[in-house]
Amino acid sequence: MAVEESVKYVSIIGSTGYVGAELVRGFAGHPCFRFRHLTSQTFAGKPYSEIYPEFRGIVDVVCEDLPYEEVAKDSDLVITALPHGVSAKIVPELLKAGAKVIDHSGDFRYKDLATYEKSYKLTHPNPELLAEAVYGIPEFYRNELKTAKLVANPGCYPTCSLIALAPFLKNHLIDEDSIIIDATSGVSGAGRKADLAYAFCETDEAFKPYGAVGHRHTTEIAEQCSLLAGKNPGDIKVTFTPHLAPFKRGMLASIYVKPSKDFTDVSSEKINEIYSEFYKDENFVRVLPGKTLPDVKAVAGSNYIDINGVFDPDTGMIKLFSAQDNLGKGAALQAIQAANAMFGFDETTGLKNIVRGI
Amino acid sequence: MAVEESVKYVSIIGSTGYVGAELVRGFAGHPCFRFRHLTSQTFAGKPYSEIYPEFRGIVDVVCEDLPYEEVAKDSDLVITALPHGVSAKIVPELLKAGAKVIDHSGDFRYKDLATYEKSYKLTHPNPELLAEAVYGIPEFYRNELKTAKLVANPGCYPTCSLIALAPFLKNHLIDEDSIIIDATSGVSGAGRKADLAYAFCETDEAFKPYGAVGHRHTTEIAEQCSLLAGKNPGDIKVTFTPHLAPFKRGMLASIYVKPSKDFTDVSSEKINEIYSEFYKDENFVRVLPGKTLPDVKAVAGSNYIDINGVFDPDTGMIKLFSAQDNLGKGAALQAIQAANAMFGFDETTGLKNIVRGI
Amino acid sequence: MAVEESVKYVSIIGSTGYVGAELVRGFAGHPCFRFRHLTSQTFAGKPYSEIYPEFRGIVDVVCEDLPYEEVAKDSDLVITALPHGVSAKIVPELLKAGAKVIDHSGDFRYKDLATYEKSYKLTHPNPELLAEAVYGIPEFYRNELKTAKLVANPGCYPTCSLIALAPFLKNHLIDEDSIIIDATSGVSGAGRKADLAYAFCETDEAFKPYGAVGHRHTTEIAEQCSLLAGKNPGDIKVTFTPHLAPFKRGMLASIYVKPSKDFTDVSSEKINEIYSEFYKDENFVRVLPGKTLPDVKAVAGSNYIDINGVFDPDTGMIKLFSAQDNLGKGAALQAIQAANAMFGFDETTGLKNIVRGI
Amino acid sequence: MAVEESVKYVSIIGSTGYVGAELVRGFAGHPCFRFRHLTSQTFAGKPYSEIYPEFRGIVDVVCEDLPYEEVAKDSDLVITALPHGVSAKIVPELLKAGAKVIDHSGDFRYKDLATYEKSYKLTHPNPELLAEAVYGIPEFYRNELKTAKLVANPGCYPTCSLIALAPFLKNHLIDEDSIIIDATSGVSGAGRKADLAYAFCETDEAFKPYGAVGHRHTTEIAEQCSLLAGKNPGDIKVTFTPHLAPFKRGMLASIYVKPSKDFTDVSSEKINEIYSEFYKDENFVRVLPGKTLPDVKAVAGSNYIDINGVFDPDTGMIKLFSAQDNLGKGAALQAIQAANAMFGFDETTGLKNIVRGI
Repeated sequence: MAVEESVKYVSIIGSTGYVGAELVRGFAGHPCFRFRHLTSQTFAGKPYSEIYPEFRGIVDVVCEDLPYEEVAKDSDLVITALPHGVSAKIVPELLKAGAKVIDHSGDFRYKDLATYEKSYKLTHPNPELLAEAVYGIPEFYRNELKTAKLVANPGCYPTCSLIALAPFLKNHLIDEDSIIIDATSGVSGAGRKADLAYAFCETDEAFKPYGAVGHRHTTEIAEQCSLLAGKNPGDIKVTFTPHLAPFKRGMLASIYVKPSKDFTDVSSEKINEIYSEFYKDENFVRVLPGKTLPDVKAVAGSNYIDINGVFDPDTGMIKLFSAQDNLGKGAALQAIQAANAMFGFDETTGLKNIVRGI
Repeated sequence: MAVEESVKYVSIIGSTGYVGAELVRGFAGHPCFRFRHLTSQTFAGKPYSEIYPEFRGIVDVVCEDLPYEEVAKDSDLVITALPHGVSAKIVPELLKAGAKVIDHSGDFRYKDLATYEKSYKLTHPNPELLAEAVYGIPEFYRNELKTAKLVANPGCYPTCSLIALAPFLKNHLIDEDSIIIDATSGVSGAGRKADLAYAFCETDEAFKPYGAVGHRHTTEIAEQCSLLAGKNPGDIKVTFTPHLAPFKRGMLASIYVKPSKDFTDVSSEKINEIYSEFYKDENFVRVLPGKTLPDVKAVAGSNYIDINGVFDPDTGMIKLFSAQDNLGKGAALQAIQAANAMFGFDETTGLKNIVRGI
Repeated sequence: MAVEESVKYVSIIGSTGYVGAELVRGFAGHPCFRFRHLTSQTFAGKPYSEIYPEFRGIVDVVCEDLPYEEVAKDSDLVITALPHGVSAKIVPELLKAGAKVIDHSGDFRYKDLATYEKSYKLTHPNPELLAEAVYGIPEFYRNELKTAKLVANPGCYPTCSLIALAPFLKNHLIDEDSIIIDATSGVSGAGRKADLAYAFCETDEAFKPYGAVGHRHTTEIAEQCSLLAGKNPGDIKVTFTPHLAPFKRGMLASIYVKPSKDFTDVSSEKINEIYSEFYKDENFVRVLPGKTLPDVKAVAGSNYIDINGVFDPDTGMIKLFSAQDNLGKGAALQAIQAANAMFGFDETTGLKNIVRGI
Repeated sequence: MAVEESVKYVSIIGSTGYVGAELVRGFAGHPCFRFRHLTSQTFAGKPYSEIYPEFRGIVDVVCEDLPYEEVAKDSDLVITALPHGVSAKIVPELLKAGAKVIDHSGDFRYKDLATYEKSYKLTHPNPELLAEAVYGIPEFYRNELKTAKLVANPGCYPTCSLIALAPFLKNHLIDEDSIIIDATSGVSGAGRKADLAYAFCETDEAFKPYGAVGHRHTTEIAEQCSLLAGKNPGDIKVTFTPHLAPFKRGMLASIYVKPSKDFTDVSSEKINEIYSEFYKDENFVRVLPGKTLPDVKAVAGSNYIDINGVFDPDTGMIKLFSAQDNLGKGAALQAIQAANAMFGFDETTGLKNIVRGI
């Protein structure tokens, strides 16, 4: 499949976190990409497979600690898995060196500068890039991705929420003031770090909400909701609560909305129909049949997102549900889907058959 | 501590399910109750500790399969852990034989017969008992429990939801049309049975909603909300979605409501104050300080329920959170709390120090 | 990659158990095999992805309930995931219809009929096939696999134990009377069934030995140990104890042996050297460096097996450790490795990059 | 039960680790002890229930950071949960101030100084206390505990192993050169700390051996084996391998030994008989009936240890199994059992009914 001249070289900056490791897993089996640099400050000089022993014999590339410019200059694509604030400074250097960039931080996800700066409590050093950056959900911005130089990979909660909400926002079928998103993430969402809060004995058999007011993903979701509804950024507000659950990977959003006045024939069947129609050409968005509801188990380890919804006639509420892998469709594998679009490969290349099984 | 003449004899019908086992655990350390009969059709003739080996040397009572009347006649208290529909037929026999009864099914939890019959798709054989039965949340019906012959132990989701909602309903601080309850239970809520759906390999690393329309606890919550608000059963409707998470014990409710027009000074601090005031004399309802949010880990294995709430000024929504053990405050240990009230013991007797620890 | 004429058609009998699902996962991404029939008595008529929703859009093949002969006649390869006793009767039919067969039961794993019949408490209906069947560990029987019609896929515990023991048995470096194997399996090893013993609430936070005397894999391991040591089946006996641990997939063997008199330069370094030399051309056996010990986490979801060993100078004991995925190298993925060998494909085809990641 | 004048005051130094929290849990429900000081350098000034929210309303004692002498002077008992090396220096001060001491480190567990110093790579500052310290397994050293000033609480692996081995060592029924202990601990054994190795995503679905040569508990087990067999410390050596499994609490030892020449009537039944006879008066050692094997699930959260054994006639090996909670009988609750003995209370006081249930 991969004719040698079409092979592209990818580098990952911050490759040893969990998102980095999932990027490595995804690209390791990809026929059209080869690794150029896997960078790490902590593990420079060590083979990648020493940090993640599951890759022994598969990805034994030695981690490097290189100047950003050098990373970019012989790479077709650089993917950054860095903290917000750091990306904002570095990404322009990477672009200048000629590489395309997919960034995993929040730094280029917003169109509205003020919302970003308020949400992240930072002054953006390169705000001119916000307009140029493409928000990397291929299902919404596929055309823009084809020519994008800079892609802002979406947050995990935003991807999960927006895929579920989009058909109803685009078609003005819901009351835009009523959006309530109750979402749950697996522990890998917190990243790879020595932190007591994510120790096994603190997390196993535990379940709790966190960031109940002001979690950053709230404004990211809200801005994209506004754009999907054809409004200005900031027009729509959403109520959002994340929770932490004792599994490694996976994310579920349970969304409560009211039908708009125009949505007169609302029913569970109709909701399913709307989803099926809206996503009929998509490979990775799976509309579940009938009243089957999503389960994170079915999407773990993959780039798939499963969705469905129901209508509760007693209260007049619509409930929408979506499940994805927070590291998969919610982060690294979606980035590979976007990379496929950016380099003209079929979007499913290297992604279709990645499933975890039992 | 336990003066011998004050000792009461308790029997458990259906003692070998998970609720039964938690009742056994709770009463085993209780200074004022002794076991009379532990009944089981499947395990009659076997010591209880053969079914649950953690009780070896602690509860070696032999399980019996006795006529209900015989169970009741030498017991002060009979606790039934039977399926709905079955309890409705049996409980009158137990009462007739002179025992007080705490029932764990849905059969005596409703005041409105039609709501029960619609929710459970059954005709109630003894509807006259609905008026007499006391809904067993001691925090709300303490006085009624003192003289109760029949207590309907509440559902786990209703207990968790109602403790969080009560102060706001009683004081008319929330819009009664806006109640949305998103709740999550551990796997023990499904009971002790050989069912592929609850097999380790199907449940571990999984997370999903279920019963998204018409779960029975919806109407039970709604009726009690109506009563707490001083309305007729059926006046208030609620939106309720349960989820299943990969831990054994524990339950979290995340509740979304709008402040009523009268609640002009709504804020996170005010919500905390209202909770603190309302539950200031309670032993088992713990209002968490500041913005600390409940975690099922902190209540697992106990009769405690932890609550707190926040206000989101961006959307004007109130978020209330409550965490309990679904088998503890959500079932068996709350039944023991009610039993203490029914027999004139201090409500905390035998319950105060039961905690799971790490 | 897959030239169309070289494509082989594979059918799986008993495709909806956990081993079946892992075969489906493995073959779904294999460039040289296509599914012909996925059979299931229980789920005939349903798409495979309805039983395992992770395969929605990936493997939507409809399950069939066909006569065995019809399954075989248009398949190049039939893989049976059936209970022992059943396979013994059916496999000859499949062979007669012209297909090659890989069988997952114990029915064709033994060379010594009496040992099989004693271990499985059955009379073998087709004992003449025992001599012909190839024991499907490619690392030991690669040449035989190339021309095999019938492959007995090894047990999970035997694969894990034998890979660790082989270099020492073949080179007569250990006392053959001293082999003690203490092994642990994830819960998926028990198969997909509604059985209280494997319910989440019974298995989570549990850990225990089982089958401490007479587990069937004991004689399978012992016979292969004898053959690897160049002895007659039955000459070597082993002490073997399996345990059940609360994870879905994975298996660890901790093996205790004494060095033979000839092994005069025994040391941890030497053990590592022997492993490295013995397995230097293998793709799926990974000898860990230095004193790094295997972890089931690093092999879960893959066909890799990680091994290493140490010498304890205080007691003169050798400890050998091996970790594999019980459904991967321990069952389905090893079968695909064997299938590759049987049909002349590179042994790593479709297997090299399957890893679970975080 | 607790006559006020018989109440004893206990202080815990290093009270906020997992062993500390289990001591707090155990003493919180104990009728004869009251907390005097809970010390913590990190959390001084905070209520204990802020660190462990499960204790809110139960143990709200404020943590202190006091000089050791002040801790001891108004305490009847001081329990130290400190690192080895630290205890060795502090314990003499506590004793001098008049308190009895139970120490959880390895510093006072050995009778042979050289073995301690080699195992812990430390010079002992107060070696004269080794002779005086009582090794705190009440089942073996009950009489010594009655008058003990200093108790060395045993390691978790040693307790688990020695309870299983004692009857056979004391009666010379096993070959003392053949002892192989393969043991597994839950993650809480690693303590409460921010360490990537024990993060949920690193530990869940993982299983591995560690410390395969030279784990410190090896020499502790070996010395006690020697003493139980009536030999000199150092006479017996044992092969010991610990493993880490994905559950919070619990420990299993699977022990392989050969019967001695005198043990002519060895059989599974005989092993069970020997256990039953040896431990017939014990409250916390539960000999399982028939061939029932121990499971950590049945002892989690308690001070019980479950044991049984089998004989494998094919290989002539005896297999012994024991399960305990590593924080319970393996640490904190055993310390309370010892404390009961030290102060003349019934050994089961406050411990009998502590079980975790489902």
